[in-house]
Formats: sequence, C-alpha cells, structure tokens
Amino acid sequence: MEFITGGVCAPKGIRAAGVHCGIRKGKVKKDLALIVSDVSANAAAVYTTNIVKAAPITVTQQHLADGRARAVICNSGIANACVSDGIEKARAMCKLTADALGISAQDVLVASTGVIGQSLDLQPIQTGVSMLTAQLSTNGGTDAAQAIMTTDTVIKECAVRVDIGGKSVCIGAAAKGSGMMNPRLATMLSFITTDARIESSTLHTLLTDAANLSINRVSIDGDTSTNDMLIILANGESGVQVDKNPEHLSAFTQALNAVCVHLAKLLAKDGEGATKLIECTVSGAQDRRAAEKAADSIINSPLVKSAMFGQDANWGRILCAAGYSGAQFNPDKVSISLRSSAGEIAVCANGAGLNFCEKKALQILQCNEIIIDINLHSGNACASAWGCDLSYEYVKINGDYRT
Amino acid sequence: MEFITGGVCAPKGIRAAGVHCGIRKGKVKKDLALIVSDVSANAAAVYTTNIVKAAPITVTQQHLADGRARAVICNSGIANACVSDGIEKARAMCKLTADALGISAQDVLVASTGVIGQSLDLQPIQTGVSMLTAQLSTNGGTDAAQAIMTTDTVIKECAVRVDIGGKSVCIGAAAKGSGMMNPRLATMLSFITTDARIESSTLHTLLTDAANLSINRVSIDGDTSTNDMLIILANGESGVQVDKNPEHLSAFTQALNAVCVHLAKLLAKDGEGATKLIECTVSGAQDRRAAEKAADSIINSPLVKSAMFGQDANWGRILCAAGYSGAQFNPDKVSISLRSSAGEIAVCANGAGLNFCEKKALQILQCNEIIIDINLHSGNACASAWGCDLSYEYVKINGDYRT
Repeated sequence: MEFITGGVCAPKGIRAAGVHCGIRKGKVKKDLALIVSDVSANAAAVYTTNIVKAAPITVTQQHLADGRARAVICNSGIANACVSDGIEKARAMCKLTADALGISAQDVLVASTGVIGQSLDLQPIQTGVSMLTAQLSTNGGTDAAQAIMTTDTVIKECAVRVDIGGKSVCIGAAAKGSGMMNPRLATMLSFITTDARIESSTLHTLLTDAANLSINRVSIDGDTSTNDMLIILANGESGVQVDKNPEHLSAFTQALNAVCVHLAKLLAKDGEGATKLIECTVSGAQDRRAAEKAADSIINSPLVKSAMFGQDANWGRILCAAGYSGAQFNPDKVSISLRSSAGEIAVCANGAGLNFCEKKALQILQCNEIIIDINLHSGNACASAWGCDLSYEYVKINGDYRT
Repeated sequence: MEFITGGVCAPKGIRAAGVHCGIRKGKVKKDLALIVSDVSANAAAVYTTNIVKAAPITVTQQHLADGRARAVICNSGIANACVSDGIEKARAMCKLTADALGISAQDVLVASTGVIGQSLDLQPIQTGVSMLTAQLSTNGGTDAAQAIMTTDTVIKECAVRVDIGGKSVCIGAAAKGSGMMNPRLATMLSFITTDARIESSTLHTLLTDAANLSINRVSIDGDTSTNDMLIILANGESGVQVDKNPEHLSAFTQALNAVCVHLAKLLAKDGEGATKLIECTVSGAQDRRAAEKAADSIINSPLVKSAMFGQDANWGRILCAAGYSGAQFNPDKVSISLRSSAGEIAVCANGAGLNFCEKKALQILQCNEIIIDINLHSGNACASAWGCDLSYEYVKINGDYRT
C-alpha cells in the first residue's frame, strides 16, 4: 500500500468539481462541491449521533436505504440545520443535481456545513449545479475538497493505491472539519471514493470500524455536530472484488483504515487556532473501550491542550484527564512519556512525577507534532486519539463566527 | 432568610485565619488557611469522583469516618496529588495542626490545591500553623478565604442568617475555584460552617443535595479534579436543633441551598479569563437528570462560550449542545430565549430560528450576566447550571501554569 497524490478522483470512474456560487453573501470562496461516479456505486455512511440532526442527514439516510448512490452534492456556508424548510431544501439540492446529471434524485447524497439556523437560498445552488456539471472532471477533486471548507485553513485530501490479487485498487478522500477544543463540536464531513468492488453491507461494516479507529478518535463518538457525515462510494471500476477473499479484504481494510487515520490527523492538525498536532497513545488498558475513553479524555482536556500550547510538560493534567475519563485503572501504576521529533522523555512512573530535565522537555514540546504516551499498566488494550493545542486564535475564530 | 456580610466566621463559635508561609517559592500570597470550631462539630463532605485522588481527600475521608471534626487546614500552591509521599504529608499537616490546637489529629480535616505532582515541603507549613493558631479570630474568615485562592481573582465568601423557631441560625462559607471552560477541571474547594445543631447523617444528605443543585452544576459531577472537596461543619452553637421539625429542616435546607447556589455563581463568574457569568436554565425536560444534562452541556460548550464572549446570539450552538447532551427531547419543539438586565429576546421556537432583532440581541449580550433559557417542551423538569464565557485570557492563564 502506498500514499499517492490526489483525492476523491484517484479511483477510476470518479469525477468531481467545486465552484463558488454565492451561498453566503460577501464571501468569495468555493462553496459547492459535486462528486460523481460514472456508474452506480455501492455506498455506505456513518452520521452524527446528535439528536438534533441537520436536514441533509435525514435525506441522505433515505437515499442510502438501497445501499447505492451515484453522486454527492455538498455546500458550505449554511448548515441547513434547525430551519423549518430544511428537508425541502435538501431534497431540492438532490433534485437539481439529479436533473443536471440525468440520474434519479434517489441516487444523490447531500451534505451541508456552516451556520446553523439560517435558511438555504436555492437560487445560487441552482446556478452552482449547472457550473459544477459543466466542470466535472477527473482533475476536480481538489476543487471539491476546497469547496467544502469552512474555518479549515488547509485543503484536506489524500489517496492510496493498494495491490490486491495483482491488480491496483485506489481509495481517495476529501474532508473538512477542524479538530477543535472539544472536537465533538466541529462539523466533520468526509467523502471517500474507491474503485474496489465490494458489497454495501460489508462496506458499511468496514467504514464503521475505520471511523472508530480514526475520525471518532478526533470527534468523540456520541457527541457530534448536527451535520457530521462520512460517506464512501465503491464503484467497482478497478474490476477487483475485495470481499470474497480474506487476504484481499484484509488488504483493503488496512488501506481504508490508513486513509481514515490520515484524515483524522489532517483534521486534528488543522484545529481552529491550532499550532500543534497532539497524538495520545494509551496502552495497558483493561479493554479497548477503556483505552479509547482515556485517550479521548486527554486529547479533549482544555488544560492539557493549553499546556501543550504553552510548551509546559504539565503531566499531572494528563493523569488527571485519564482519571475522570471513566476508564478504570490503578493510578499508582501509570507511566507517562512525551515524544516528538526532538526525542522522548519519561515524566511520570508509578503514578508519581519523575525528576526529568525541563530543558529537554521544552525541546520536545517546541515541535509541532507531539505524542503523549500513557501506559495504564492495567491490561493489554490500546487506542490512539488525535487533537490539537488550544490557542488564543481559537477564541478569536469562534467568538464571532456568524458575521 | 437574608444574606449578611461575612464568611466562615459568621456562625457562632467559629474562628479562622490565613497566612503566607511560603509554600511556593517566589509567590508572596497567603497560602495556608485554618478554620476552627470552638467545640466539636458534626461534619460532612463530598469529594471528587476522579479515580486519581489527591492525598488530602483520602486522609479527610478517614478523619470524617466518625462524622465529627474540629478544624480544617488547607494550603494553596501545591495540590499534594500524584506524589509518592502524599498521604504522609497530608497526615503530617493534620498532626501539626492538632498539636498546635491541643486536639486529636483525627478531628482535623485537610485540603490542598495547586500544582499536581510536586512534593509538599513541611517546613513552611510548620511555621505557618504556628502563625495561624496565634492569629485565629472571629474576624479571620476573609484571610482564610484569601489563603485558599489560586488563579481566583476575587475572594469568595458569603453568609446567611435564617430565623428558625424564633432563633437565629447562621451559615457561612469560603470557596475557591474557577468556572473554567470545562469546569470539571478546576479544583473547587468550599468550606461551609454553621451554628445549627444537626445530625451528621442528615447533614451529609443535605450537603449532597445542595451540591447537586449548585456546585455540581458548575463542576460537572463525575468529572472533577483530583482535589475537589466540599466540607460542612455544624457546631450547634446557636442552640437550634434544625432536624427534628420538618419546617425547621426546610428553612435550614433552603438557607444551605442558597449559600451553595451563591458560591456556584461566584465560582462561575470568576472563571479563568471570564468576562461574563452565564446561567442556563433548562425547563420542560422529561426528568431532572435530563434537565441537568442539557444545562451542563450548554454551559460547557466551548462554542457557546466563545459566542457569548463574542456577543453573538448563535442559538444554533445552544440547540446543538442540548442535542448531544444525552437528554432525550424532540428538537422540533424546543424554544430558546436570551436574557440579561438589558431585556429578553426569543431567538428560537419549535426548533427553528426566529427573525429576531440583532441589535436588541447585541444589547442583551453586552451585559456581564447572561441567562440562556431553553424549554425542551418534553416534560416538567427543570435545572440550572452556571458557567462563563471563553476568552483569550483563559488560554494565557493555563498555557504556562507551573512556572
């Protein structure tokens, strides 16, 4: 398996485009994206678990009932959530897209991200859909990735190629979202495409597992925004059936997991106002759920995040965050190390502080990718989570978002 | 019932003091507090539920096994948590205090707040205890309240007087802690004194209930720091038995609840970097736990907090935070209003945004005490929670706390 350049258009038979159509007045960024498979694709999705769900979630769920889709239309700027005409507008987005592509509206999935509680204006979307269908190309992945951005500062896309049974299979992806202070509050959208041939029920299982290892470790599962959505389209255009042979399935699963973990890191690293990517690896947990709880809790602790911003090796806050995570462990056994490209330093053993070199710790924490290793010494399970530090900039970005 | 000036020394038979003894080198603030009852008092406490517990928690639990106490010794600067000699040092603090007062170490309760993972030096504490016992007075409450502060910017104390059966009963309190971004991470210490006569088991029940209505709605219960502690001493010196008559018990309970809610507001308002006190009142919930969950979730949402700092009536974030709180409700029925001394404005009804006047909303949000009212229209239960906005200053305070 290797990472290659490209995004959602890396797999065979996928075209995409992204345009500016003017969804929010005064903003001149691309705001409407379209991803289309040349042939009908098996498809699966995982959604926000927030009980307040945006209209596009409901409509996409309905359109995915048959496990198949041809296209994804997505706007940024307005979330189409908490408005009385939400479902009507989301359906209209699908209809406009379907008519322009000459397909059934049932085969179009829809997503939105932006301000909650404002109505979508269909006029710019109608114009935008015409522009998109005219511009659709196998080089349009980056434009699509750009069009779904909100407070994102970098375009998020990636692609991998994996040899399965002597043939090449590609997986491509575009994502938006910011690994925020409490990542659960960001809207995360990820669109994954692949030319693998695979049953939609298997695809759904693999996608759920991959999300749990990756994106759910940035956005804590169970606590998500009104609009979060992760979609995968598998159009089979590589001619490689990946779910009839355990080895092939394993190779595909590894590649899908790699794409999702890569997206998770991109999301975390581009946290609103972030200056550092923080990875927390918990080992020695009683079970995987305990490891996940501890990792999520540490990554989400504003005190840990503030300490990382301040380059302060305040390991007590790390242990404290593990302590209130709900994971069971013996605090007197815990060990903690900090790592980066500048080296590694053990800061806590047997639940008590070590007399470490503050200068060395500072060198490690000055890097822009920090790994926190915590071993609970209570079992054999492990998990990783990703986040970012907490900076002045976060407050600035979120203090007046609507205007 | 009326609020009166004073703090822990308002009840009869309570003396206190606070001194600077030099627990943290280079800081010249008061750092050691002592509260003493002239006679043995019935006592109760509630503690952090973090599984990583500071040593003073363990020692206080042991000393409170008999439901009685005479004194509370508390230092700020070092938390005496996550160190190998913690229990030994906490016991020594009790012993030094007991010897100076001529009482049993078993009758001394101990609390600490400050940096985790550093060992306490007993030398300054020994000197400090001598100074404290020399200075103990019925005017020492404010000094004691000052000595327990860490990042607090204001002294937190209050007192109420209530007529029970024609006689006067007082309750006094001192507290420290900051209603942080995720309040669960602050160390909260509250010491309450009263001259009421009351059984310690009843006292424990009343204290637990009062905490749940107040301080646990700032510090989310179940997710607390290593050192959180709320102690009450009832020395009976008023001569008024409050737990043998339902009316008397009710009057005392109301007074205790009022003190605890007042402390909760003081804690929330002095949030690290806070510019505003935010109160969230949830009504129409299915049950009280659902109301608490929704209120806690809204108060803790960094996006809601950032919006309040930015004076942005972004009600979608409020609804979103209720949606992921775990409370069950129908999002299509929810209504939301914002209130302050500048007036009230309805911003959402039936789950959708109202066309409100942004200028009026801005006037309301410019005040320094904001109330968010959310009605879930799913039942009759209600709850309140308190917090603060999220400002640049928070990040600054927590970015480099240890140095």
